[in-house]
Amino acid sequence: MAQQHTSRQEDVERENGFSLEDDHKLKAEAEGEVVSIEKAFEGKEIPSWRKQLTMRAFVVSFVLSILFSFIVMKLNLTAGIIPSLNVSAGLLGFFFVKTWTQFLSKSGLLRQPFTRQENTVIQTCVVASSGIAFSGGFGSYLFGMSERIAEQSGDTELGFKDPSLTWIIGFLLIVSFLGLFSVVPLRKIMIIDFKLTYPSGTATAFLINSFHTIEGAKLAKKQVRTLGKFFSFSFLWGFFQWFFTGGDDCGFSSFPTFGLKAHDYKFYFDFSATYVGVGMICPHIINVSVLLGGILSWGIMWPLIETRKGHWYSNDLSSSSLHGLQGYKVFIAIAMILGDGLYNFFKVLSRTLSGLFHQVRARNVSSGLPIDNSAPEYPKLSYDDQRRTRIFLKDQIPTWFAIAGYVTIAVASIVTLPHIFHELKWYYVLVIYIFAPTLAFCNAYGCGLTDWSLASTYGKLAIFTIGAWAGSSHGGVLAGLAACGVMMNIVSTASDLTQDFKTGYLTLASPRSMFVSQVIGTAMGCVISPCVFWLFYKAFDDLGLHGSKYPAPFAIVFRNMAKLGVEGFSSLPKDCLFLCYVFFGAAILINLIKDYSGKMGRFIPLPMAMAIPFYIGPYFAIDMCLGSLILFVWEKINKAQAEAFGPAVASGLICGDGIWTLPSSILALAGVQPPICMKFLSRGTNTRVDKFLGS
Amino acid sequence: MAQQHTSRQEDVERENGFSLEDDHKLKAEAEGEVVSIEKAFEGKEIPSWRKQLTMRAFVVSFVLSILFSFIVMKLNLTAGIIPSLNVSAGLLGFFFVKTWTQFLSKSGLLRQPFTRQENTVIQTCVVASSGIAFSGGFGSYLFGMSERIAEQSGDTELGFKDPSLTWIIGFLLIVSFLGLFSVVPLRKIMIIDFKLTYPSGTATAFLINSFHTIEGAKLAKKQVRTLGKFFSFSFLWGFFQWFFTGGDDCGFSSFPTFGLKAHDYKFYFDFSATYVGVGMICPHIINVSVLLGGILSWGIMWPLIETRKGHWYSNDLSSSSLHGLQGYKVFIAIAMILGDGLYNFFKVLSRTLSGLFHQVRARNVSSGLPIDNSAPEYPKLSYDDQRRTRIFLKDQIPTWFAIAGYVTIAVASIVTLPHIFHELKWYYVLVIYIFAPTLAFCNAYGCGLTDWSLASTYGKLAIFTIGAWAGSSHGGVLAGLAACGVMMNIVSTASDLTQDFKTGYLTLASPRSMFVSQVIGTAMGCVISPCVFWLFYKAFDDLGLHGSKYPAPFAIVFRNMAKLGVEGFSSLPKDCLFLCYVFFGAAILINLIKDYSGKMGRFIPLPMAMAIPFYIGPYFAIDMCLGSLILFVWEKINKAQAEAFGPAVASGLICGDGIWTLPSSILALAGVQPPICMKFLSRGTNTRVDKFLGS
Repeated sequence: MAQQHTSRQEDVERENGFSLEDDHKLKAEAEGEVVSIEKAFEGKEIPSWRKQLTMRAFVVSFVLSILFSFIVMKLNLTAGIIPSLNVSAGLLGFFFVKTWTQFLSKSGLLRQPFTRQENTVIQTCVVASSGIAFSGGFGSYLFGMSERIAEQSGDTELGFKDPSLTWIIGFLLIVSFLGLFSVVPLRKIMIIDFKLTYPSGTATAFLINSFHTIEGAKLAKKQVRTLGKFFSFSFLWGFFQWFFTGGDDCGFSSFPTFGLKAHDYKFYFDFSATYVGVGMICPHIINVSVLLGGILSWGIMWPLIETRKGHWYSNDLSSSSLHGLQGYKVFIAIAMILGDGLYNFFKVLSRTLSGLFHQVRARNVSSGLPIDNSAPEYPKLSYDDQRRTRIFLKDQIPTWFAIAGYVTIAVASIVTLPHIFHELKWYYVLVIYIFAPTLAFCNAYGCGLTDWSLASTYGKLAIFTIGAWAGSSHGGVLAGLAACGVMMNIVSTASDLTQDFKTGYLTLASPRSMFVSQVIGTAMGCVISPCVFWLFYKAFDDLGLHGSKYPAPFAIVFRNMAKLGVEGFSSLPKDCLFLCYVFFGAAILINLIKDYSGKMGRFIPLPMAMAIPFYIGPYFAIDMCLGSLILFVWEKINKAQAEAFGPAVASGLICGDGIWTLPSSILALAGVQPPICMKFLSRGTNTRVDKFLGS
Repeated sequence: MAQQHTSRQEDVERENGFSLEDDHKLKAEAEGEVVSIEKAFEGKEIPSWRKQLTMRAFVVSFVLSILFSFIVMKLNLTAGIIPSLNVSAGLLGFFFVKTWTQFLSKSGLLRQPFTRQENTVIQTCVVASSGIAFSGGFGSYLFGMSERIAEQSGDTELGFKDPSLTWIIGFLLIVSFLGLFSVVPLRKIMIIDFKLTYPSGTATAFLINSFHTIEGAKLAKKQVRTLGKFFSFSFLWGFFQWFFTGGDDCGFSSFPTFGLKAHDYKFYFDFSATYVGVGMICPHIINVSVLLGGILSWGIMWPLIETRKGHWYSNDLSSSSLHGLQGYKVFIAIAMILGDGLYNFFKVLSRTLSGLFHQVRARNVSSGLPIDNSAPEYPKLSYDDQRRTRIFLKDQIPTWFAIAGYVTIAVASIVTLPHIFHELKWYYVLVIYIFAPTLAFCNAYGCGLTDWSLASTYGKLAIFTIGAWAGSSHGGVLAGLAACGVMMNIVSTASDLTQDFKTGYLTLASPRSMFVSQVIGTAMGCVISPCVFWLFYKAFDDLGLHGSKYPAPFAIVFRNMAKLGVEGFSSLPKDCLFLCYVFFGAAILINLIKDYSGKMGRFIPLPMAMAIPFYIGPYFAIDMCLGSLILFVWEKINKAQAEAFGPAVASGLICGDGIWTLPSSILALAGVQPPICMKFLSRGTNTRVDKFLGS
């Protein structure tokens, strides 16, 4: 009977894909962490920084970079919400190299074992590369320059520049490496001196560390299997959906789950595995905020404003005209995003300044922490911290190298950028490059404290300042958008790569190998991302159009911000400016309440998240809330399991659907169209259609 | 840590809705069964037969009868495959009365505790009542008389009789009680003397017994909770689907899962929770047989025959004409059903005769088992059997009462039936009533051995004999169908109710209370079933039409069998008769191979099951195979859990979807039509439709 019992228990466990044993290990790991992680790794040799940079690592990074670029690009072009993919990158990197090394080790050809440092190198490279897919602005400033967006915004006279593979790659290669060099001197200050937390980077490091213990590797394998299952499911689901999209408004993405009326106001579940996964990764409050924003805008405000049609705005306007309802949607969203951005900018700035003040004072008191090449001993530090600091400071990157690199690239880009964007004068670029390192520092510091990168807020700052400086008659819109690109690339890289350095610090990876990996990753990204974008651009003719499958919602938002900065508020429809002020104020007020209501603050929605559905509609919010709900129920049922496998399920859903866009866009390019249209008609229309088809 | 372990284990269990503890109990019960079930119940008083018949039992039976009548009716009118609902009836009966008595016992008003005898009474009553929904022939002989079916069959000149509430209720009241009285004398012979197994009845009895032990009640509660969950899911899913069916060929039931071409040949998943549930209850081999039959017919034969259009049959025929492709579908199916039916008839007959021969010889040797009212002692019997036999024989129903009842009702129906069906002469009825008890005995005996009721085969026998006797000029088709009804009611009741007596024997319910419960249940069924059918008939205008939501496939099959009996084979299209012979022979051959290939026989498909999709198409086979697959995987993962909860899940799916047809038909009657049509168009058609809608 006892035997029977055990076997039943195993059955239950097998069904859950997770055993009690794992749970013990998870707990043991968590407890072990308090004691010492590095003691567990003590026997293991740390390879030299050159040996951490293996060929196989970069091959895997290249493959994963393509995968993640597709995913980020798809997210850019659909709703614009991009979750952190660090964890997925670490997990998949481990899986690929581990499979490869196990295969080699079985055939006796393995020369170098797979270490956590190599794993970190892969993760860093992939993050650097796929980061370009975001900071390249394919869904925001860069695509906002195009004629298609200009036409929708009704301001082609303000200038446009259509995307082309050559100038995009050139532009990215010029501006993307700058961020790297500005990060190098920050590295030591942020991680060793200030000991900032960098939540994402720390989480990734713990993941990688846990993979490379024997128990961790087992759990990782299970996680990878779960990820694989949901990856396949999500991929096949995307494939299946494709067959039913043979026409406009066909297929599951137009499924009027809550009725046709609700579908008109974009309330429906669009069966997107991606956003269900995103909802599982994002904190509950973000999902709820997005839904609330959707209900507020598409459920209440837009229907109300629509009743004023003919009074507040002209009857004759097309539905996409920014002088009509569309204007309210875009500008109120901008107002809210700006209000939230500005509040957070000042909040992080004040915390940065007060943090700096305390740091500097503390340093003066203790006569300063040493920042030299000798391996120092900090008597107060734990064994782990001592060892990590020693390794982190062993391989130095000289500051002169960083400064020389920064200045060289800056000069090169000051010379070349005005040739790409004629509206962007060389002195604008110079000014940006003078202020950029300071802002990069701010962003890296803020991100270390809050895990929240404000790159696009700094980008918007550049839009307004450079745009206003250039003025509308001198192509201020394009100048502003280009300036945004230059600024965002530096600032975004700064926070992303400091996160990676933190991961490297915690996994004993050499800063030099990290730097090289970042350089290679950035170079990959500068080529991969434009190519992926180009595939989307060529495959989907209606890319960027409102209401299409890939509306690229932020492209028009960015363009209109640039216009606003250049032209002022004259072109807005009636009372729109007033509503903008209200929502700008509300965003700041909500943030204030959130910050000063103590523990209750976490139940107050985020204005930034609320603003996103204002323009594109709440359908993706419904997906995300479903993801959130699934995770919530899962956590209620089995918290340990949900925590261990939730991210794997979510990553699987996101990755599978994301990679499906590759064959789907290739099919579209090859002219293969889906055979069936799943159409949703009202009963009346259906009767007419049946009569038409019958005759 | 040990504490932690336990709590995690509970988590795992809670998620599975099933605990290890239950498993022990299941096993203990199974083991306990070998020792003695009745010892466990020894302390419990058995109420007198009058006390077993409580008001609450019949109230619950009435409610459940309506539920099951809806389910059976829906199954009748869709694919015609009806799984055993005995287990569900027992389970739900337990749930309702237990909830009620617990409520009363808490408020101190409980006068009589809920016993397993009362539970058996409910189960018997519900089975008797919902059995009428099948034997009433609403999906077969009775509806086959209607003008609608006659028109489709193209033989209105052979006579028709449209359904009407009054004559159906009258007809059922006249013929349904006869079966009851023919069962009464059989009861003792079958159960005490012959000790036949009656698998379904035995399973139900074990279920009811297990509910009423203290541990069993806990498991039953969990099963009911699982059933409730899937009931709600299935009901809501039916409700959700409804919204998208605003037109012909709209909604999930027309979803071209495998493409439009496959959908034309009825290969698609129609999202029916009912048939997924049916697939979970039916043995795997049935599901596989149905799918194989579907592939053979709609995948290979019909497309091939279609290429001979213009050669084998005329080009000008409508698609539903029996002189065209439709004729092959119907008559080949009939041939196969007849072949299988005939084989099984002779097989069961030979086993019946040889069984009888052995029984009688054994009885002569041991000078006979006593069949008197005194409680006999069988020294060789176990404690359980002794006690059960004593109780079973305590409350007798005198044989004179049974015979008097049979003769009275027979006379009444010989007089009245010709007034309902003018074609059915009084001497036809008399002949049926003379042979019926013998056939009823055969069926009850065969069912006790094999759990397979051949009621509809006996019905078909009546169609052919009476039909041929009457001849086509004297309305032989209607006479044959009516005779089929008379025969089926007796023969089907005989096997169903002997199953119930077996259940009663194993749960110590009194035969008298069982008989009364059967009488009341039959009376209920004679009113409920016609009313439910009437609701369907009035609510769905296209009921019975080929290709509609409720095609009632067997109605046209039965009518054509009657026609075949009366007219001969002259009207069949070319080579159809030859194909019929081939399939008739194949059905017998397959059965022979199945019976004589020993253990491998269970892997050979059943011709009867294969024939069903020949006419209506393989879509429901795909549902059933999905159900089968789900159960198969579940059994692989966790056999004990799948066995304990599989039937509950399946019942939930069937019941929820079944009961949804109640509000759905009420909505249809009230003229509320679904608002949306989910339509599936080819890309080309869609372009035309978009142009039409745009203009």
